[in-house]
Order: sequence, then structure tokens, then C-alpha cells
Amino acid sequence: MLLNDGVRIDGRAPGHLRPVTIERGWSKHAEGSVLIAFGDTKVFCTASFTEGVPRWRKGSGEGWVTAEYSMLPRSTNTRGDREAVRGRIGGRTHEISRLIGRSLRAVIDYKALGENTVVLDCDVLQADGGTRTAAITGAYVALADAIGWAQGKKLIKPGRKPLTGTVAAVSVGIVGGVPLLDLCYEEDVTAETDMNVVCTGDGRFVEVQGTAEGQPFAREELDGLLDLAVTGCTELGAAQREALDSTA
Amino acid sequence: MLLNDGVRIDGRAPGHLRPVTIERGWSKHAEGSVLIAFGDTKVFCTASFTEGVPRWRKGSGEGWVTAEYSMLPRSTNTRGDREAVRGRIGGRTHEISRLIGRSLRAVIDYKALGENTVVLDCDVLQADGGTRTAAITGAYVALADAIGWAQGKKLIKPGRKPLTGTVAAVSVGIVGGVPLLDLCYEEDVTAETDMNVVCTGDGRFVEVQGTAEGQPFAREELDGLLDLAVTGCTELGAAQREALDSTA
Amino acid sequence: MLLNDGVRIDGRAPGHLRPVTIERGWSKHAEGSVLIAFGDTKVFCTASFTEGVPRWRKGSGEGWVTAEYSMLPRSTNTRGDREAVRGRIGGRTHEISRLIGRSLRAVIDYKALGENTVVLDCDVLQADGGTRTAAITGAYVALADAIGWAQGKKLIKPGRKPLTGTVAAVSVGIVGGVPLLDLCYEEDVTAETDMNVVCTGDGRFVEVQGTAEGQPFAREELDGLLDLAVTGCTELGAAQREALDSTA
Amino acid sequence: MLLNDGVRIDGRAPGHLRPVTIERGWSKHAEGSVLIAFGDTKVFCTASFTEGVPRWRKGSGEGWVTAEYSMLPRSTNTRGDREAVRGRIGGRTHEISRLIGRSLRAVIDYKALGENTVVLDCDVLQADGGTRTAAITGAYVALADAIGWAQGKKLIKPGRKPLTGTVAAVSVGIVGGVPLLDLCYEEDVTAETDMNVVCTGDGRFVEVQGTAEGQPFAREELDGLLDLAVTGCTELGAAQREALDSTA
Amino acid sequence: MLLNDGVRIDGRAPGHLRPVTIERGWSKHAEGSVLIAFGDTKVFCTASFTEGVPRWRKGSGEGWVTAEYSMLPRSTNTRGDREAVRGRIGGRTHEISRLIGRSLRAVIDYKALGENTVVLDCDVLQADGGTRTAAITGAYVALADAIGWAQGKKLIKPGRKPLTGTVAAVSVGIVGGVPLLDLCYEEDVTAETDMNVVCTGDGRFVEVQGTAEGQPFAREELDGLLDLAVTGCTELGAAQREALDSTA
Amino acid sequence: MLLNDGVRIDGRAPGHLRPVTIERGWSKHAEGSVLIAFGDTKVFCTASFTEGVPRWRKGSGEGWVTAEYSMLPRSTNTRGDREAVRGRIGGRTHEISRLIGRSLRAVIDYKALGENTVVLDCDVLQADGGTRTAAITGAYVALADAIGWAQGKKLIKPGRKPLTGTVAAVSVGIVGGVPLLDLCYEEDVTAETDMNVVCTGDGRFVEVQGTAEGQPFAREELDGLLDLAVTGCTELGAAQREALDSTA
Repeated sequence: MLLNDGVRIDGRAPGHLRPVTIERGWSKHAEGSVLIAFGDTKVFCTASFTEGVPRWRKGSGEGWVTAEYSMLPRSTNTRGDREAVRGRIGGRTHEISRLIGRSLRAVIDYKALGENTVVLDCDVLQADGGTRTAAITGAYVALADAIGWAQGKKLIKPGRKPLTGTVAAVSVGIVGGVPLLDLCYEEDVTAETDMNVVCTGDGRFVEVQGTAEGQPFAREELDGLLDLAVTGCTELGAAQREALDSTA
Repeated sequence: MLLNDGVRIDGRAPGHLRPVTIERGWSKHAEGSVLIAFGDTKVFCTASFTEGVPRWRKGSGEGWVTAEYSMLPRSTNTRGDREAVRGRIGGRTHEISRLIGRSLRAVIDYKALGENTVVLDCDVLQADGGTRTAAITGAYVALADAIGWAQGKKLIKPGRKPLTGTVAAVSVGIVGGVPLLDLCYEEDVTAETDMNVVCTGDGRFVEVQGTAEGQPFAREELDGLLDLAVTGCTELGAAQREALDSTA
Repeated sequence: MLLNDGVRIDGRAPGHLRPVTIERGWSKHAEGSVLIAFGDTKVFCTASFTEGVPRWRKGSGEGWVTAEYSMLPRSTNTRGDREAVRGRIGGRTHEISRLIGRSLRAVIDYKALGENTVVLDCDVLQADGGTRTAAITGAYVALADAIGWAQGKKLIKPGRKPLTGTVAAVSVGIVGGVPLLDLCYEEDVTAETDMNVVCTGDGRFVEVQGTAEGQPFAREELDGLLDLAVTGCTELGAAQREALDSTA
Repeated sequence: MLLNDGVRIDGRAPGHLRPVTIERGWSKHAEGSVLIAFGDTKVFCTASFTEGVPRWRKGSGEGWVTAEYSMLPRSTNTRGDREAVRGRIGGRTHEISRLIGRSLRAVIDYKALGENTVVLDCDVLQADGGTRTAAITGAYVALADAIGWAQGKKLIKPGRKPLTGTVAAVSVGIVGGVPLLDLCYEEDVTAETDMNVVCTGDGRFVEVQGTAEGQPFAREELDGLLDLAVTGCTELGAAQREALDSTA
Repeated sequence: MLLNDGVRIDGRAPGHLRPVTIERGWSKHAEGSVLIAFGDTKVFCTASFTEGVPRWRKGSGEGWVTAEYSMLPRSTNTRGDREAVRGRIGGRTHEISRLIGRSLRAVIDYKALGENTVVLDCDVLQADGGTRTAAITGAYVALADAIGWAQGKKLIKPGRKPLTGTVAAVSVGIVGGVPLLDLCYEEDVTAETDMNVVCTGDGRFVEVQGTAEGQPFAREELDGLLDLAVTGCTELGAAQREALDSTA
Repeated sequence: MLLNDGVRIDGRAPGHLRPVTIERGWSKHAEGSVLIAFGDTKVFCTASFTEGVPRWRKGSGEGWVTAEYSMLPRSTNTRGDREAVRGRIGGRTHEISRLIGRSLRAVIDYKALGENTVVLDCDVLQADGGTRTAAITGAYVALADAIGWAQGKKLIKPGRKPLTGTVAAVSVGIVGGVPLLDLCYEEDVTAETDMNVVCTGDGRFVEVQGTAEGQPFAREELDGLLDLAVTGCTELGAAQREALDSTA
């Protein structure tokens, strides 16, 4: 039984996030780096800032932001093969890498960034549901740090603000008919509907990806999940701000 | 200018689909096959029914449905490299193949299907926006034909109904602030927000995938797009039914 | 029994082609495009004309023509794996792509083409024997259309004729000791000898590829097959001309 | 000038082979092994005999013969990349491997071979034209040795003769209007027409592959080339017999 | 200047290790897991214990131990491409994975392990020289924990001791003519000679890999490096013991 | 029994090399080429000299030397798959290619070589232990010939000596407690310790790679093996000189 009188298996209420921690400065090499935890889900996010852009963008005066996601082989309960060993990246990995990149680009002003590239690497050290949403939320902080670093080095023109807002992400889902915020793994595998929502700090949507795992879902269910997600993202935005305000 | 007094570049009103045609029996080999057109977008969908299931499912008594999507190299305005030549499948192709598979599995009763597998191949012959939604809509019809074929051959137990409903998909998006149904390519590339929605015939949701291409979108915009999408899927459901009711 | 009193399983006489249809203008994007059918074998051929040539040919003043062949997974009786999914192109596909390219280059004057490239894509939608010969025959028509398009756009110098002739191809084989023209799949798999012949419109040879499937074949058998093939190619040349003379 | 009064650049007459040497027993590991030279073209052929057959042939009572061809990177005048390094086998390599396999299978009685497999590896140590024909001619001798070895080990049933004949191959081509036998590299690159012919010892054809490199070729030219090839194969058959009759 | 009066850039004496920390229990999923640091080099090692062995070892009654090494893309000063993205594992990665596996197998009694497999994953989170030696040293502790776990679960027969000893590794090298222990990155790139040494707890050698980066090295230099390495491995053995004696 | 009163299975004393032969000029195409034999181990080494260097080295005024190692599929007792067919290079091949390249670069003065590249290809025709050491020893001779060729062609500045010394390699190992020089295959698979040593002509070390196959080895054993290896390399150096002094 995942829900007992509205109490979840880890004791949370339906609308509560797991404990969120965001540690900055986790790498001595990367321009921005964060170890983010959503409960037992831990993702290591680095932002690599380099001057120059991919060939197809040269001379445009605009920058580029992209992301790569990966799970360590034993980040999950049973060991998975390394994609490097299999020689090809799986569909799920591709999908999530693309989602993270799009989500962060939604708050980037390419002109202000100038012809510079930021690559976000999100490596899951331990997985317990919500790895892609933790990755987006942590990558935003690493990105902000990398941009701050570049401003300090005068690699971005004075007065330009490449970040147009903040972005965070959370999962929501329906378990036993009840809409839940920030699903852990056990909840995720039993959810009837599973949705990942990416929001900006002002409560607008960047991405909405909802999937019926079992039964198709009705419009009211969708509406309930969206409400819950906006609340969650707002809380995560506060955690991001707090992390960025502390001294790294 | 894509919109002129609410009239779209191809003359449609914002809430109108492009002309939809569904031709069944397009292959003499496949158990189900359809050539579907959404305007100038043409997708060839085949359903291959085989007895037996992948190894991980053997002995479960349950069947499996999966899909592969691909674009012919010159289905687009400029020729793209073949993924077979490049030696790897791109992220977008992976993503869409997975989406089609999930969408069709949402209306499948695995027990009723028995230990049989249906593979849907969706090859885009000509692209003009909405290839994934046309693929889902056409693949449903090919799937229904393949299941009918298997029932005729007694490969499915008498009285079992592997299909629990119908499924169709459509794209919606905001162009110049106006929500539009079933975007053609030119609209798609300029849309501020782009959403693909997969619905069952009774108006419930199987997948909702919305992306802010430029500005993040507000809740009311999202609501407007969802309304439009449900309307579109309902119309497509009628076209599917009509095609299936005709003699192949 | 494939042959009954010299009548073939589909009712043809030994020296008869299957019904041939050539539909031009099948793609709104490609500079030349054809759907060709040899009986139940259907191949979709597109010709993509682009200015410029591969790096190794730059500055030569000469153009380039190349081809890629592929079968849709369910073009055959049982579904085959996609080569993109397997991550490598098989030997047969390679062989046929190279054959198509060589065959068309045999009627190209590279100087007259100028530094332009034409890529022929031949995708088999439905296979019933003779896919490579149908591909060559159809690709010639698509190539001619693409060159006509380029002449209209002044991408080829006025007065230059990049096409030095016409080219068509047909299969021949010995079944039950009888030489047959244009084998369908059932004939092909039982043929003792199988030959593909590519001829120009004036009856000269571009490619001759004969293989003993069972017993080695004698010189007189080879001679008989070559006679039959020349006849077949001449008829196909007439069909090509007719298609090109009609309004696309 | 490749031809001077009918004398070729290496002093041969048009209908003469280059010096052919066939050294057996070149490997202490392989069941059959040959170093064959056609002039400066040197190919190392090994025949690996193993009990058992590929899965798709198990239980048939029939054996299998297959071949792999490869060029050492510096077998040619300028170094080529290794296909293992590029991670994929090129079309030409695929094509030739398949040709060698088919040619040898033409003289194999699968039933007599029993459920055993012979793999022929043909590695070009030095290339000077005609590598595929030298490979076929040498591989036949290695195959005969491997079968002899297996008969000695009683791995083939007493009295069964897996080899139904002998097979050899030679290239022919038209250079400066003159049909030539066994082209060296310099002749090969300038030939107007290039043909590889595989014959059995009794002068029948196993494979005929002719290609117009420049102008299409006429029927009489084709006839002349076939005559020349049969003569060449007959001489090669004598060289094979002589090698096999000597003590390895 | 890397050395100033025998003092190294980070203040160490030539024969000193960097600070070593070994944190056990870093993953909630893996049967054994360790975060090991050699100064700024940080490697995350997990040991995955599974019942059963690879096919080639089935029925032998013996177990198997193997390892995979990888660097996160931004573990280094400038970002490296992911091997999964490139689609192939580089030579250096292969080499180190094999070294780690061999080193750990040197202290394994396969019979005592029984038909079980342990896979060690060593992922470099931050690199500053000596990643392979830190990986071996940390992987040993993770392996010991996984074996302890399996003994607790009775997956190993009572009384059997799969570990026959302990194993640790360290790098040594000659910089400016002075032999140094445990090189950091800056020392590593300027070393004239670079050696990785793997020792058991009793001071015997498992692997010795020395490479002249500039000048070849003399026998006395080799002897001096080996002395230093044995000292270093003994100290690391003590750190391993201490970590294992503490409560995870 | 591999050792009988100190006599090895092939009759050698523990400190003896197998018969070594070095044939130069084995390829008409390569700038340097050698067929080297260490007993039954035969490796074909070619050195390809080309003007220019890889991109990352352009403008440095320095040259580059690299190597690729490969085994023919039937160079071993049972046939191995081709790496080109598997589509990826195995770890062992990578490791040995890198070792050969490093070993030869140890005696190269890049400045004296100028912006030229030498690629060494070492293809094992027959394997009986020690293929990598034979490859290094033979490749040195091929490299010397290629450099001599380039000096003759004035592709290297007059008076510059790109070779700073000579390099050879040999394997040593402990079998039945006895240190042996230059192990053949049967000795190699039973050795308790296995070491490959690369030395310059003046007895200094370029590479030392020792591995405990069974028990870890003690310092005195290591010392004894190193003594033996230096002796072996000195003898090989003499064989190299003799080969180079003869007329190719």
C-alpha cells in the first residue's frame, strides 16, 4: 500500500516535496557545479563554459546551451550496462538530454550570452525517481554559476544578462487516484499517470510532458496535476535562490 | 505573415484540421497497412503481426506492441542523411518511436492480445509538419487491421478484444498569439508554443507534450491549446472510424 | 510448378515483362521523383539536386551522381530489421546502392553537369523480385527530371546536356531450364541462374551480373539470357520515354 | 601508353596471365592455407574448418562455406584506413567477401560436407590489380586442403566428396580497344570495361560481373572478353591442380 | 618549478602520499560502495554482486570479477567527449578497465567465491592524477564490502574466504631527476618516467607498468621507483584496513 | 611438463631466444617493410611515411609516429572474429597498438623528423606468443627504412637524425618457478608471471609491463626477469643491426 489515509510510504503528504539539498562548488574544474538531492535521488551537475560556438552558429553573435544526461551503471537498484560499452545511447537518455537542454535554453538570451557555449552534464549518482527533474533544477544553478564566472572573467559583455529567468522542474502523478507531488521510485512505477513539468520562477510553463501509464486521464486530473506541479516548482525556485545567495 | 485576419497561410481557420485521408491495404505483405495524409504530410504505416513475444515477456501470457518511426531522406525540403548510413539513430527519431509505441499501447489489453507482437513501422514519405501525430493516427488504423487479421486467423482467442479504445493525435500551437490546430511546417517553425496531444476516442488524454519554443506559456494558453486538441482528436477519431468501416 | 506449358505462375510468357508503371512528381520536395512499379514491386525514387560537389571533387569543374538503396522493414513478406537500428548497412544494401550509382553515372557527362551533385534515393515500398532493376529504371527518370529542373533554374550552363543517353535494367534467369525475363520473387528464389543486366537505350551494356545459384551455367545459356535482357531493357526504355514525354 | 604494338606495360601479350604462384601450408594453425600471387598481387588465404554450422542451419544435415576478404592498410600504394578503426566495413569489402563465398559454394555439396563450416579468410598483403580473382583462386586450394584434412580426421563421412568441381577466377578488360587478360593495377584504372569472371574447371560460369567504366560496351566486346576469361580460368585451374598434386 | 629544495608544488616531500580518504556506503543500491580521494582525485567505486557467472564460466563452480572505469566528461580541466556519445570506448579507458579487473582478480579465490559475479564500476568524479591507482585502491574496499554482504546473505558458502589478500596501487615517477610518490596531475605531465604499481598487502607485486615519457630510464632509476611504490602501497593498505574496520 | 631439467618444450635453455629472422623489403608499396619471425610468431610490419602531420600538431615543426596492431583472424589456433566485422576494436588490440606507438616514439626526435608522419602497421600473420614484442622489434627496422627512404627523397632536412637510438622488445616470464626468456604460446598461458620489456640498444628501459597471472611476485623474481629481458633485448638489437646492414 503506497498510500495510507493520504500518507505516503515515506511519510509525506501528497503535496509535499522530498527534502531538497543543493551543494554548489562540487568540482574544482567546472565553471559551475552542483550536487543536488531530491531525497535519495542524487545528480551531479557541471556547467562547462567555453568561448566559441558550434560551427552552424558561428558569426551569429549568439551563444549556445546544451546538455547531456547519463546514469552511472549502479545508480539504480540493479546494475545497467554502460551506454559507452553498448556503443550507442538509448532512447530514454537521448530524450532526457534533449529535455534538459530545451528547458535551460528557455531562460537564455543568446545575444546576451555572446558567442559562448555552456554544456551541462547531469550524471545521476543515485536514482530514486525524478532524476530528470532534479537534473534540470540542479543544472540551472550550475548554469547560473558558470555565467557568473564568465561575467567575472569579462567573457560576457558588461551589463548583459544571459539569464532571463529561473527554471525548475518536478514530477507529479496519480497514485491510487490521488495526485502526488515529486514521486519517489516506488510511487513512479505504480503511478497511473506520470507528468514532468518544467516551470519558470514566475509560474509559467516551459515543458509539460504527461503520460498515461495505465488508463487515459481526464481533463480534471490533468488540471489537478498542473496545479500541484506549479506549487512544487515555486518551492524549488526558492531553494535555488537560497543556494545561489549563499557563498559557494 | 502567417495569419491574416485569423486566416492561415493555407486558408484554414485556426481550429481547422488539414484535409485528412486514410488509405488502407497499401501493402500486400503487411497484416495492416495505411497511407495517411494530413495535408501534404504523408506517412506510410504498416502493422506486422507475429506470434510470440520478446524474451523478457515469454510465459507471461501477454502480448507486446512497439513502433519504429523514420523519415525518408528526401521527405523534407532539403535531403537529410540516412540514419543507417550515419550508423546511429538520432534523439528525435528515438523520441518519436517511443511516443508512438506508448500511445498505441494505451489502448491495448495485453492479456487479450495473448503472446503475440505487433510492430508498427511509420515511414514518412513526405513531411509538412505533424509527422508524429499523423503517424499515431494512421498506425492505429493499421493496428486495428492487423488485429482483425489475427482474429480471422484465430491467432487471438475468440471473444477477446485486444483493443480497448481508439487513439489519435494532433499538434496544436500558438502562432502570433493565436492558438492553431494541426500546424503545417511553416507554422510549426514559427510557433511560440508547440504541443502534441494524444487522445482516446472518448476525449481522455494519453500523452500531452507541450514545449515553449520562445517565451514560456501561461496556464490559460495551455488550457486553450488543450481544448483545441481535444476537438481535433475527436474529428480524427471520426476519420479513423470511417476508414475502418469502409471495405479495405 | 512455376512453369506450365511455358506459362508462368502469373500467366506471363517467358519473354514478357510484368506491367510497368512510372508515376512522376510523387514528392513535392524533391527535384525529381518517381514511383515505379514492376508488377507488385514498388520503388520510390527521389533525385536531390544540390549545388556543389563532395570535397574530393572540388575545383574539378565536374559533377557527381550517387545513389542509396533501402528496403522499408515490411516491404517483404516477413519484417526485416531496420539497418539504422542494427547500426550498420548490410552487404546486400551496399552492393545495390553502388550498382545503382554506377549505372546512372554511365550516362552522365560530368563536365556538362558542372559542379553539382545529384543523390538518388531508392526506397523499396513493396518487394516482389527485381527491386534493384526497378530502382535503376525509376531512378533514371527521377534523374532526368532533376536535371530538367536544374536547367530551368539555370544551374546548368545553357546548351550543356549532362545526360548522354538513357539507362534501364532488368533481371533474367533460368527456371526449370527455361530463360525468363523479369523474375518475380517466387521465380527468383527457384532460379538456377540469376542475372541483372543494365543497358543503355541503344542496346549496349553498362553492367552484367550473372550468378549461378545452383549449377554453373554454360555459355549458350548465358547468351540466351543476354538476348532476353536486351529485349527487356529496350521495352523499359520505351516506358521511360513515354513517362518523360507526358506532363508530370 | 599502356599498349605498344599489342605489348603490355609489363611485356605480356593481351591473352597472357601474369606469373602465378601458389604456396600451400603457409600457416601452422589453419586447416588449409595458401599464399597466392598473381604477379605483384599477393593474397594470404586460410581455410578454417570447424564442426557445427550457424544456428539457422542446425539440424539440416548440411554444411556451410563462407568467406571474408580484407586488405591490409598498406597493401596499396597509399595507406588506407583500417575498417576496424573506422568501425564499419565498406561496400567494396562486403561485395568481394560475398562474391568469394558464393563462388566457392558453387562447387560444394552441402550434404556431403555434413554439418561442418569452412570459413575462408582472404587477406591481401600486396595489391596490384585482381585481388578478388586471386583470392577466389587461392581460396579454392585452401578449401581443398581443409576438406582433405577433415577427411583425414574422419570429420567427413567416408566416401563423401564435398567438392563437386574446381573453381578459379580472372579479370578481363578492354584497354585502348584491346581485350586484355588478368589486368594489373595500371591497366585496371584505365580500362574502359572491366569484368571479373569465375569459372569451374570444365569451363562453365559461376559468376560474370562486367562493368562499363567509361563507354557502355557492345555485345561483341562482351563476347570477346568472355572468351578470354574462359581461357584464363582454364590455365589457373591447371596451376591449382599442380599445386594440389605437389606435397604441401 | 615543480620542485624547490625537494619540496613539491603542493608542499609534500618526495616520498609522501597525498591525503587519502575512503568513505564507505556511498550508495544505497550497491552491495559495496566507496568514495575514495587521493588529494583532489575523487573516484566513486561501486561493487555490484550478482548470482551467476558469464556463459563461458557456467558450471565451473568458479566466480568472476571484472571492472569498468570511466571519467565523467568534466572530471578534467577541459571537458572531454562522452565515450557513449562517440559510440566507442577509447584505448586508455579499455586499458585501465582491464588493469583494475586484473588487479582485483589477483586477490580472489574463484572457487571460494562460487558461481557469483562482482562488477566494479570506477567513475572518476574529479581528476588530478592517479585516477587508476585510486580506483584500484577504492575498488578493493568496495569489493570487500560486497563480499561481506554476500556472506551475510549466505550467497557464499560458510567458511569460504573469496579474498586471499588485499590490494592497493600507487603511481610513482621521476620529475627533475627526483623519484616522487603519488603524482598529482601537474607532476604527471612533466614526469620523465611514469610508473603505476599494484601491490598486495604483503609487499608483493601484482602489476608493474613503467613508461619512459622522455628519456629511457636506467635500472637504478627503476629500482628506486619500485622501492617508493612499495612504501606507498603499504600505507594505502593501512588506510584500507582502517576504513574497513570502521562501521560503514 | 613444460620444463624438464631446465630444458624447455622446444628444447631451448631458459635464457635463450627463439630463432629470429628479419626480412626487409617485403612490400613494394611501403616506405619500409619487414617480415619478422620470433620462432613461429610471424608479424608483417610496414612503415608508411607521409608528409604532413595530424591537425593538432600542425605548425609545430614536429613530426608524429603512431602504430596499429592487428591479428589476422586465423593467426591463432582457433579462428577469431575480425574486429572490422564486430565493428569495434577490442581492449587488447588498443593496448598493444598504443604500446608499439609509445615504444617507437621513445627513439624519435620529433624536431628532426619535421612535419612528417610515420604509421607503423603490425599485422600478425601467425601467432605463437610474443606477438607484441616481435611487432615492436620488427617495426623499428621498418621505421628505420622509412626514415632512410625519406632522407633519400630529401623529405627530411639534410643532417637531421630523427632516430635517437634503437628499440627492441621481448617477453619474459616465470614458469614452474623458473624465469624464461621469450615465451612461446604454451609457456605464456601457463606462466605465473608475465612481463613485456622494451629496451633501447644501450640497455635502458622504455616500457616495463609485468603482470602476476597467478600468485603475486616478489621483488627478487622481478629483478631476475628484468636481468633476463635486458639480455634478450641486446641480442635482438644485434639482429636488427645485422638486418639493417644487409642490402634490402
